[in-house]
Amino acid sequence: MAEKAVFYHAGCTVCVDTEQRFVGAMNPAAYDVEVVHLGETPQRLAEAEAAGVQSVPAIVMGGAVYHINHGADLSALR
Amino acid sequence: MAEKAVFYHAGCTVCVDTEQRFVGAMNPAAYDVEVVHLGETPQRLAEAEAAGVQSVPAIVMGGAVYHINHGADLSALR
Repeated sequence: MAEKAVFYHAGCTVCVDTEQRFVGAMNPAAYDVEVVHLGETPQRLAEAEAAGVQSVPAIVMGGAVYHINHGADLSALR
Repeated sequence: MAEKAVFYHAGCTVCVDTEQRFVGAMNPAAYDVEVVHLGETPQRLAEAEAAGVQSVPAIVMGGAVYHINHGADLSALR
């Protein structure tokens, strides 16, 4: 069964490009990726922070956070 | 046919973790990923720099560079 991963973004250009590239390239048999737009769902900011996300775009996989390039700091989304 | 991607690293802990996570999660039908250890093949540093790589780990896909977390700056590998 595919493991769950969460891709956090905020609709920025860097975010959208990264989402298309990475989420599109991932093996659906390995990861089931949920995409969360923190600008539209700010109620999930606390969850992202708790997972260790400091900036977007970022993906949480297997309990680890991977910050990919840099679009915006989480503090800018509050 | 799968597009070529190049994952550059330098054997650091952050690099190895990222390689296992990302390269292992990618759909082989979408990307054929070459893994390059810049510490062992410093002759490829110029190629990485020309592609826009500033630090490792990084992956070049479709002509764009994605820096994932931060292990070491390229300048530290010369």
